Amino acid sequence: MNDAPFDWAAFAVSLGDVPTESDPALVKLKSRDFYWYSPVLKQQLRRVSADLIAAPRSEAEVIAVLRRCYAAGVPVTPRGGGTGNYGQAMPLHGGVVLDLLALDTIHPVRDGILHVGAGAKLGEIEARCKPQGWELRMFPSTRRTASIGGFVGGGSGGVGSINFGQMREAGTLLGARVVTMEAEPRVLDLHGGEVNRVHHAYGTNGIITEITMAMAPAQSWIDYVVGFDDFRALARFTDAVARADGIAKRLCTAVAAGAAAYFKQLRELMHDGESLGFFYIAAQSAAPFEEMLRGHGGRVCRRLTEAQAEGHVPGFEFTWNHTTLQALKVDRTITYLQVRFPARGYLAAVDGLIATYGDEVPMHLEFIRVDGAVACAALPLVRFTDEARLRAIIADIESRGCTVFNPHTYVLEDGGMKQTDPAQLAFKHETDPRGLLNPGKMRGWDERRA
Amino acid sequence: MNDAPFDWAAFAVSLGDVPTESDPALVKLKSRDFYWYSPVLKQQLRRVSADLIAAPRSEAEVIAVLRRCYAAGVPVTPRGGGTGNYGQAMPLHGGVVLDLLALDTIHPVRDGILHVGAGAKLGEIEARCKPQGWELRMFPSTRRTASIGGFVGGGSGGVGSINFGQMREAGTLLGARVVTMEAEPRVLDLHGGEVNRVHHAYGTNGIITEITMAMAPAQSWIDYVVGFDDFRALARFTDAVARADGIAKRLCTAVAAGAAAYFKQLRELMHDGESLGFFYIAAQSAAPFEEMLRGHGGRVCRRLTEAQAEGHVPGFEFTWNHTTLQALKVDRTITYLQVRFPARGYLAAVDGLIATYGDEVPMHLEFIRVDGAVACAALPLVRFTDEARLRAIIADIESRGCTVFNPHTYVLEDGGMKQTDPAQLAFKHETDPRGLLNPGKMRGWDERRA
Repeated sequence: MNDAPFDWAAFAVSLGDVPTESDPALVKLKSRDFYWYSPVLKQQLRRVSADLIAAPRSEAEVIAVLRRCYAAGVPVTPRGGGTGNYGQAMPLHGGVVLDLLALDTIHPVRDGILHVGAGAKLGEIEARCKPQGWELRMFPSTRRTASIGGFVGGGSGGVGSINFGQMREAGTLLGARVVTMEAEPRVLDLHGGEVNRVHHAYGTNGIITEITMAMAPAQSWIDYVVGFDDFRALARFTDAVARADGIAKRLCTAVAAGAAAYFKQLRELMHDGESLGFFYIAAQSAAPFEEMLRGHGGRVCRRLTEAQAEGHVPGFEFTWNHTTLQALKVDRTITYLQVRFPARGYLAAVDGLIATYGDEVPMHLEFIRVDGAVACAALPLVRFTDEARLRAIIADIESRGCTVFNPHTYVLEDGGMKQTDPAQLAFKHETDPRGLLNPGKMRGWDERRA
Repeated sequence: MNDAPFDWAAFAVSLGDVPTESDPALVKLKSRDFYWYSPVLKQQLRRVSADLIAAPRSEAEVIAVLRRCYAAGVPVTPRGGGTGNYGQAMPLHGGVVLDLLALDTIHPVRDGILHVGAGAKLGEIEARCKPQGWELRMFPSTRRTASIGGFVGGGSGGVGSINFGQMREAGTLLGARVVTMEAEPRVLDLHGGEVNRVHHAYGTNGIITEITMAMAPAQSWIDYVVGFDDFRALARFTDAVARADGIAKRLCTAVAAGAAAYFKQLRELMHDGESLGFFYIAAQSAAPFEEMLRGHGGRVCRRLTEAQAEGHVPGFEFTWNHTTLQALKVDRTITYLQVRFPARGYLAAVDGLIATYGDEVPMHLEFIRVDGAVACAALPLVRFTDEARLRAIIADIESRGCTVFNPHTYVLEDGGMKQTDPAQLAFKHETDPRGLLNPGKMRGWDERRA
């Protein structure tokens, strides 16, 4: 669309009351996410920009914008907090970026179920629900700024996945309202397993306006940073906590010294060369957690109750994709990978990677639950030299029985999905016949068209 | 002691204010538990009786009783609700049964941690803590009448173990006060892992007077009974629910038609030949649970919210050891086994047992969590013919890679423990030098003495 002679000013006027933004600098800002984590995406996507931002304040306004865009053949790319890492919300073909942050209604939790507008920020949801006795089952490390719609549309799990697995598992995503991209947009109510048609589909097959999600009973969490001189000992401790069914937790993360050295805000707490573990442990499990820590030879570097948290960077902002972000703040040559280890023998696989790559790939483990069992994933840093070396590392890790989810692609199928989700593709045929929603992201669609 | 010329009346008087009971019928009643589940124990233990019941109302009175018993060489067997199945609280050598039900103080839960007298009933604890936002992490099917001290001293897990594993795992049992059996009884405060010295030791190495236990955040549970025409389909559904990390639950039980047929109170809900599943599902997970049930071809037989529970037998009273109890109410020839399947391939192992034994061993599965993963246990009924046949069945099941915990023994090491726990034995040397606490239950002690 960028090259077409198109009167964007007139188009903006045609949207009536819907707030729009056309200032090129602001439009470009709102056309970006954290794609620059990846040196590959940084090259590929740096020129990407929408032509116009539209910020509807209601589902009716969403429908009005989509109706106009459909009529004019204008691509639409939905956006929440813009905290993705893969260009999820970046408009490859220009057009309209649909800023959904104004759809931020948070209804009171009923029977542990949250109904919420897609634009509500996760941090705000957590703050509002906690006094009601509920909290999010899971959230990304970008909790402060990410929207729930963005998390559902472009995320997969995070803090809390050690208890509830990933978002696509049955039981967390209970419903979604989705507006279609048609001459006369329809509003579809998806329930239960149907919601996976739009979950992690990057907004390619419908605009999510409202989400229904199961919550967890709120607990009083203690934010622990623990230190170990030896990363392998930390990995074993983190695994032991993850597998300890009697210790109530929300996060189990192990970061090797080579990565933890970038954590400037924690430097005063750390010894030189120390590897750091990050844990959220329920108050009633603090004593057994610390007993286990002593048994494994680690030490408490920081221990913050919720009442003490004010003024500190929360532990979760050193975990998941924030581990990489903290490193990038210091060293822009750093990048990362996403690795899932085999279900059995994962600690040996971790040891093997450390032995082979040492400080070229500083290790970062996240423990989650998969299919009723503890599983080990990694988001190791990579000291980036060139794409060929990165590809060689990926190929070697895969040859060891691990799965690598490439974070250096904006294409759905090349990242975490690994293949076209037939339900998502079929749904796109229903909801976006002209292929105007976030075009270029779903390879399966583009290949059928070609 | 039963045969010794001993003046029990004088001894009772010597206990001063401590309430006692010496009426032989009442003493015999309070010397029994559900040992008669086992036709083997029923023969072995039917003559067992204490000489006197003492019911101290405070730790000071416990100390006073133990001091006197030590001086007189009188065996002491502690007792809570008397709901054990293995003669745990039955005084093999007579003497005093120490009824601890009066030590029933329930302190308010603080930071998710319960401090409670050993005699408090589990049902009462649950009722008192729920309005404070907390509930027991796990409880046996005898929740209505069992005491927490009895559960800690003689139990191992139950409803809730699908989330928190068994009680011996780090993090649930946080502390215990224990009175020793010495000339001058001491009060020991055990913390963390130390508590396992007295957990499931049948009161052989100290009298537990107070317990500190981690609780779970209270949830609103729906009590489901579901029906399947085919037990194998039910087993697969139950396994799927157990492994579904996004479905919040507290109980996952599958009972084959041959056992469910004994559930008189549920007969009106059941089809002929139907196998029944029992689940406690959090309100926010009801819809995905029912969606999964439909997908597996099952039906809802009963669905009770907590508000609707009044006047119904709760689902958990058809699970764990109550499955057997319900059968025994109808058919006194029935007995049961306790089986742990291998970590992998457990459904195939279940199928194998069904193929071999059919209705001779009606299947009953309980899913729990072990070491961070879902595991499958069974408490199948056995249509008892004789001990030789029972032993042959046990040997065959063990030959298939399963572990059988013999419920037909009152000896610690021959049941769930499988071997002498050296920490428990060492602790007994410290706390009970004369071997007066619940004598005859810890083989390791008796063998060292012999």
